[in-house]
Amino acid sequence: MDKTLVIGANGQIGKQLIGLMALAKMPVKAMVRNAEQANDLEKLGAETMIADLEEALPDGAFADCDKVVFTAGSGGKTGADKTILIDLWGAVKAVDMAKKHHVRQFVMVSARDAGDPENGTPAIKHYNICKHFADKHLLESGVPYTILRPGLLTNEAATGLITTHRPETKEAMTITRADVAACVLQSLNHSEAINQIDELYNGDLPIAEAFIKAVSNRLG
Amino acid sequence: MDKTLVIGANGQIGKQLIGLMALAKMPVKAMVRNAEQANDLEKLGAETMIADLEEALPDGAFADCDKVVFTAGSGGKTGADKTILIDLWGAVKAVDMAKKHHVRQFVMVSARDAGDPENGTPAIKHYNICKHFADKHLLESGVPYTILRPGLLTNEAATGLITTHRPETKEAMTITRADVAACVLQSLNHSEAINQIDELYNGDLPIAEAFIKAVSNRLG
Repeated sequence: MDKTLVIGANGQIGKQLIGLMALAKMPVKAMVRNAEQANDLEKLGAETMIADLEEALPDGAFADCDKVVFTAGSGGKTGADKTILIDLWGAVKAVDMAKKHHVRQFVMVSARDAGDPENGTPAIKHYNICKHFADKHLLESGVPYTILRPGLLTNEAATGLITTHRPETKEAMTITRADVAACVLQSLNHSEAINQIDELYNGDLPIAEAFIKAVSNRLG
Repeated sequence: MDKTLVIGANGQIGKQLIGLMALAKMPVKAMVRNAEQANDLEKLGAETMIADLEEALPDGAFADCDKVVFTAGSGGKTGADKTILIDLWGAVKAVDMAKKHHVRQFVMVSARDAGDPENGTPAIKHYNICKHFADKHLLESGVPYTILRPGLLTNEAATGLITTHRPETKEAMTITRADVAACVLQSLNHSEAINQIDELYNGDLPIAEAFIKAVSNRLG
């Protein structure tokens, strides 16, 4: 069975993803920064690996994994220098390692406006630019990709219901982190997600159905 | 005679470049942020254009220009968010406009470690990453390029003497801003600089000779 490396496993989406994967008995390796974080995730049933995204990434993290999820982020509390070092450069290094180790799918948790930072929210334009170049690097790498671009993240409970169509109002452009984690799981388990870019918002379709619909819409 | 658009004309390198170009009677349009800066550069003999690199760039800035020099930088006094918005995204927008307007040479004032941020100075790694992706965008654009990667910039007087070979010691990896401005001028006036990437340090060769030597070394 495929093993998945989750980078940013101790983040708010990452932890929920690890929990879901453990429940589904999917082999998962959680990359975290320190022993304390590792301890928490081992309790959930994950294999763990300690590595720092700001350093060179170890081959051992990728060598026995078939898939990679990148859901690391420096968060809003640090400076924009960390956004560059983690969200952009960390992702670029992870993609390069995925390519080196012939990973068969790289799921990037991106952001709504990463495709077009110029027309996104001005207050986080610098963040969207970093996500833009991380996504671009993945797209150009040749590694099979799934790029998920959620709207504003909330901490509410999972709804299981999403849409990949951008809502008309800013207020509706939100999605729970729990649902994003479930969308990552869906992407890992269904090959139609390969080489797709999807925006994600809470909506009215079950996740599996929304993904299938997104693909069939693209096929016309 | 070719007209050159200089972006970041009010910067420390930009101003000296405008001065040199005016003395050489080279047609130059200085892009600056406000009327006060424009006034200063007009005194040097430059045509000026007011535009903000954080906004959409006006077609009018590029339409009548044959060449573009990008020497804008947010500087060390603002946050890294401005490094992303100016040094990276501003450069990317300028390259896109240069491509749209079929500019025949784009001279990028880059930085020593932009080619390999991972092994550059740790304290400015985030800056080097931004310069890396700006350079990459230019390289992939199809616009004829000259990428200049100076070492640590100093404010001393021009020496006219440089090297494109990286010195052995960190202490020697410096160059005056005045010499960088002269190297930009050399790049604009000599077609062997087209599609070249050169590091720049103060050294022992006259600028023209150093450039010719760099090219002939590449040709073997």
